[in-house]
Amino acid sequence: MDHSENGRVPNAPENGISEQDFQYNKADDKTDKKEEENVESIEKIFESKEVPPWKNQLTFRAFAVSFVLGILFTFIVMKLNLTTGIIPSLNVSAGLLGFFFVKTWTKFLEKSGLLKQPFTRQENTVIQTCVVATSGIAFSGGFGSYLFGMSDVIAKQSTEANDGQNIKNPSLTWMIGFLFVVSFLGLFSVVPLRKIMIIDFKLTYPSGTATAHLINSFHTPQGAKLAKKQVRTLGKFFSFSFLWGFFQWFFTAGDGCGFVNFPTLGLKAYENRFYFDFSATYVGVGMICPYLINVSLLVGAILSWGIMWPLIGDRKGDWYSAEYSSSSLHGLQGYRVFIAIAMILGDGLYNFFKVLGHTIFGLYHQVRDKNSRSVLPVGGHSSPTDSLSYDDQRRTQLFLKDQIPIWVAVVGYVSIAIISAATLPHIFPPLKWYYIVVIYIFAPTLAFCNAYGCGLTDWSLASTYGKLAIFVIGAWAGASHGGVLAGLAACGVMMNIVSTASDLTQDFKTGYMTLASPRSMFVSQIIGTAMGCVISPCVFWLFYKAFHDLGVPGSQYSAPYALVYRNMAILGVEGFGSLPKNCITLCYVFFIVAVVINGIRDIVGKKWAKFIPLPMAMAIPFYLGAYFTIDMCIGSLILFIWEKIDKAKADAFGPAVASGLICGDGIWTLPSSILALAGVNPPICMKFLSRKSNAKVDAFLT
Amino acid sequence: MDHSENGRVPNAPENGISEQDFQYNKADDKTDKKEEENVESIEKIFESKEVPPWKNQLTFRAFAVSFVLGILFTFIVMKLNLTTGIIPSLNVSAGLLGFFFVKTWTKFLEKSGLLKQPFTRQENTVIQTCVVATSGIAFSGGFGSYLFGMSDVIAKQSTEANDGQNIKNPSLTWMIGFLFVVSFLGLFSVVPLRKIMIIDFKLTYPSGTATAHLINSFHTPQGAKLAKKQVRTLGKFFSFSFLWGFFQWFFTAGDGCGFVNFPTLGLKAYENRFYFDFSATYVGVGMICPYLINVSLLVGAILSWGIMWPLIGDRKGDWYSAEYSSSSLHGLQGYRVFIAIAMILGDGLYNFFKVLGHTIFGLYHQVRDKNSRSVLPVGGHSSPTDSLSYDDQRRTQLFLKDQIPIWVAVVGYVSIAIISAATLPHIFPPLKWYYIVVIYIFAPTLAFCNAYGCGLTDWSLASTYGKLAIFVIGAWAGASHGGVLAGLAACGVMMNIVSTASDLTQDFKTGYMTLASPRSMFVSQIIGTAMGCVISPCVFWLFYKAFHDLGVPGSQYSAPYALVYRNMAILGVEGFGSLPKNCITLCYVFFIVAVVINGIRDIVGKKWAKFIPLPMAMAIPFYLGAYFTIDMCIGSLILFIWEKIDKAKADAFGPAVASGLICGDGIWTLPSSILALAGVNPPICMKFLSRKSNAKVDAFLT
Repeated sequence: MDHSENGRVPNAPENGISEQDFQYNKADDKTDKKEEENVESIEKIFESKEVPPWKNQLTFRAFAVSFVLGILFTFIVMKLNLTTGIIPSLNVSAGLLGFFFVKTWTKFLEKSGLLKQPFTRQENTVIQTCVVATSGIAFSGGFGSYLFGMSDVIAKQSTEANDGQNIKNPSLTWMIGFLFVVSFLGLFSVVPLRKIMIIDFKLTYPSGTATAHLINSFHTPQGAKLAKKQVRTLGKFFSFSFLWGFFQWFFTAGDGCGFVNFPTLGLKAYENRFYFDFSATYVGVGMICPYLINVSLLVGAILSWGIMWPLIGDRKGDWYSAEYSSSSLHGLQGYRVFIAIAMILGDGLYNFFKVLGHTIFGLYHQVRDKNSRSVLPVGGHSSPTDSLSYDDQRRTQLFLKDQIPIWVAVVGYVSIAIISAATLPHIFPPLKWYYIVVIYIFAPTLAFCNAYGCGLTDWSLASTYGKLAIFVIGAWAGASHGGVLAGLAACGVMMNIVSTASDLTQDFKTGYMTLASPRSMFVSQIIGTAMGCVISPCVFWLFYKAFHDLGVPGSQYSAPYALVYRNMAILGVEGFGSLPKNCITLCYVFFIVAVVINGIRDIVGKKWAKFIPLPMAMAIPFYLGAYFTIDMCIGSLILFIWEKIDKAKADAFGPAVASGLICGDGIWTLPSSILALAGVNPPICMKFLSRKSNAKVDAFLT
Repeated sequence: MDHSENGRVPNAPENGISEQDFQYNKADDKTDKKEEENVESIEKIFESKEVPPWKNQLTFRAFAVSFVLGILFTFIVMKLNLTTGIIPSLNVSAGLLGFFFVKTWTKFLEKSGLLKQPFTRQENTVIQTCVVATSGIAFSGGFGSYLFGMSDVIAKQSTEANDGQNIKNPSLTWMIGFLFVVSFLGLFSVVPLRKIMIIDFKLTYPSGTATAHLINSFHTPQGAKLAKKQVRTLGKFFSFSFLWGFFQWFFTAGDGCGFVNFPTLGLKAYENRFYFDFSATYVGVGMICPYLINVSLLVGAILSWGIMWPLIGDRKGDWYSAEYSSSSLHGLQGYRVFIAIAMILGDGLYNFFKVLGHTIFGLYHQVRDKNSRSVLPVGGHSSPTDSLSYDDQRRTQLFLKDQIPIWVAVVGYVSIAIISAATLPHIFPPLKWYYIVVIYIFAPTLAFCNAYGCGLTDWSLASTYGKLAIFVIGAWAGASHGGVLAGLAACGVMMNIVSTASDLTQDFKTGYMTLASPRSMFVSQIIGTAMGCVISPCVFWLFYKAFHDLGVPGSQYSAPYALVYRNMAILGVEGFGSLPKNCITLCYVFFIVAVVINGIRDIVGKKWAKFIPLPMAMAIPFYLGAYFTIDMCIGSLILFIWEKIDKAKADAFGPAVASGLICGDGIWTLPSSILALAGVNPPICMKFLSRKSNAKVDAFLT
């Protein structure tokens, strides 16, 4: 699972955006060198182990485990989508859990003497790939953004474009259909290019590489021992987090009840959404996210909810009419949403152009080097095959063994594109077939750009491409022809292609490093994507039916990005007319601030950049409030103290603890939504009243 | 600080009561042998260290530290007195904190070059003794039992004997005066006997011995290192517990608010007082108390609040009139209180006769052995001076060096007795001077018995002797002459003498083993007692003024034993007439059950006794409910799991963690009572409502 700039938070942005400069090739070489030094003997260690043929890498048990984990992670991602939209990298937990399940399975079979095939790292990679593909759909399916933004729950929160032709309420059938016709295109679009990315360009793909290291380490004897301990730690915190979620549930009869509304820092702070809400998920997320992200979130929260919103709130009646409710986009909510959008767009566009620059510059160098290489084929210190390490030789050999014919890719892409162009206008009437064709003509290029950029920076720009599609197609369709719905649907088409493309290339890198066959990877991805296309809508449907306040501002599942995406579409179609007073000025300011901060981060270099907050991260609490930020900072603090006490242990077990916390709380949403569906309500309300109103209530009750 | 059977819980009853059989001398020898083997070189280790003369053992810094710690522990003991009456052994925390303060002080002076006198274990013993004497008054002063039982808050809870002559409301002046005239008698009564107890009889005094080992270990280099770590652990949990208390405070605006009313196990269980109330104190207490105590409490809680009270509650209107409120002694509350009293008395009387038997039997053997020894003074393997180890020789030598002249003891006792007999009737008019003279004639014998019994069993029966006084003097004075008040006051006089006598002998044992001079110990005890006579009433006064619901059933500071003691006095004076229907029958049953269970515990031997609950401990939750029991069981469980994971660490740091939890929460009561006095009320109420009433409240609030 890789990262995109909107919501999904990069694992290590210091290795991503901020590290880049125009000597990217050097940086690349350095990484390769380091890799060689550290792991030069990786393939020597595994030399004695036979690599099974690609068909044997695809076992039934692998897909059974992937299915279970796919559901688990879809729940987690869906919960995160619908609460804050911040999705950390779940690679480590997927890796650990996958290893744990299959290892238990094979251990059990081994004892009963039924084990036909040992558990190999190739099979592990297949599971990893399949799970990532499945749960990736939960993100790129837009259930917390564009897709749910089409619904009337979100539409009626703004006065513009909430007519019938701009609304499409969720329904299981069309969602599954939609996902099936758009999710496979990304797969076919990068298949022909995988050799260029992995072998010729030797792109880093930090997340893919890290996952490969993890999987490789699991399959050495020492690594297996550590993995076992990590799994045990994960299991402990999983149980704790699950039980904590269960315990919390009992106290949530009614609105504003329970630990999620605990005014930990006082009632005044609570009103401004500063409180610790005891969410195990976000404490875990805070432990996974780099300190910089957490600090940026906190800075953004203090800036917005601590300073700006109270100040703008004082202008009530002047800057905006006092008669609007606090959740109206014409009131204070409008400032929150549109300033956040401005910052997100500023950051997104800056990075889009930066990564595009890198991509073009990088391609130019690659091509030039290749040309010079073919001019000087004999001798020379830069001859590629000579300088290849044993690891690289063996990996390259196996990577090139199982080819995927290029005609498969072309036929697949074209046929799905035709089906897609034919069916999508039936799902979304404003999305004409020629818009789709245009998207599909440009999409492979953009998919390639994104996969290449992600390889360099670990930063997938899928949602930025999606936003581009919102504005372009939305404006093209126009307000009177359902431009908002067309824009959102186009966003979905674009995001799915671009996002799967980069996910898949990451996976190919992982496969390359674990000697998994590209063919088995490809099949695994297809199966994973297919599972995701069914699982994700079903999980969303469960949430949608179980929690009736889905998408309502201030509720537990407020789906913040659904409103943000819809309002971007409205902006694209209708312009800035409806914004409250001074809002557009503030938006310009924050757009420019986002660009400038990013610029400064790049200019001052890595050393200082780590002290400058990320505008993207700062924008997230603008709309949501500080509560999840405080959770995450507490997670950060725990990790920080742990690292001070015992760095080695914190590094080895921190991710396992965090994964346990996230997964346990995430999977609790399954029983909790089932309880909600079954009409079982919690028995107790834990309420927080000021002393004054408590006295009133006491008088009332007696 | 030693233990008495009522409220104060023994550190290790397995080494106390249950271990005893009639071969007590063998057991005694065994303990001595073990001690010799383990620590035969203790005094060799300390050989190079000079023992300062007794006047130099009494330093200003020691008393300064004792004063601070005395206040700290008085707060803790007072809080425990007024909440549940369960007071664990605070020896380890007193030892650790005393060591920490003086060590810091001397380290600081050492660096600044101002250190005149190094910190010795004798000085440490002086601090320990002084702190125990100071905080001991908080227990024997009866602020949670007889003394507060005289007040009208308690008196008006029963319809009997709540006239003016049976009520004496607390006031700072008479409380201090009362304590000064009764608290020093115990000191003088055992001074002449200390040589017999410690050197001739070689009594074990398990708590005193354990404290001495602790102090000795602190002053070896290795022990000092461990102590430093323990102090750090204590400090961490102290801060945590203090901050947790502080945090909880914010949410307690109004009755029934806050974590102390958290229906952790559901509302139904909460109504029957089964809930975890997040009290750090009782989690800590649970970690210090042996498993058997905690299990007994739980059994008692389930038996009473889980089974009996609901069943008796169903008989409302039949067994007792439905018009009585739930806190009336004529209603359900009567069953709770009197059945608890019956069990406490049954257990107390059983142990009184058992320990008395031991004492007489032991004395008989001691005297016989002495006689036979004087007949055979030369040779023989049992010659006492020959068989003495180096440790014992050196200890005996130093113990006998500084004598306290016997005339000091006699003059002291007689003069204080005269002052006491002259002043007490002015404080309590129903307590005639001749009652007091009678008490003072018998008291030294009883004090000796208690000190001797405590030396054998570690089980101080002070409150049993106090209860005897209640019944004897109460009946003598009679109902029409303020017998209830006379009984309670006589209880105080008796308890103070008997309790200080055993505390003091414990301290002499500690002093003997750390080479502290008996003279410095005696002075330290006098100073400590004098401090206690001022500090304890002041601390109680702070509670009394700050918390207006002190003594009200169901409130945070319900002072459960105040009601129990008063009702014992009423029973003694007025008989059983006022008890509700069938209550007297149930009381007989539980009295007999308590005796029988104790009998069975003694018959089956140590191996099985540890599976049979203690009736004393079972009776405590009868009146209070299960909440603190659940806290304590959680503490127990934490310790149990910790011991399973790492026994060595749990043994070394468990007491420090527990002490930290108890002390931090205990000392939070100081600022919390000051806040209450200053009229600063908490801002928020954390309320727990059922779903139904929450809906009503929500409708009311909007």
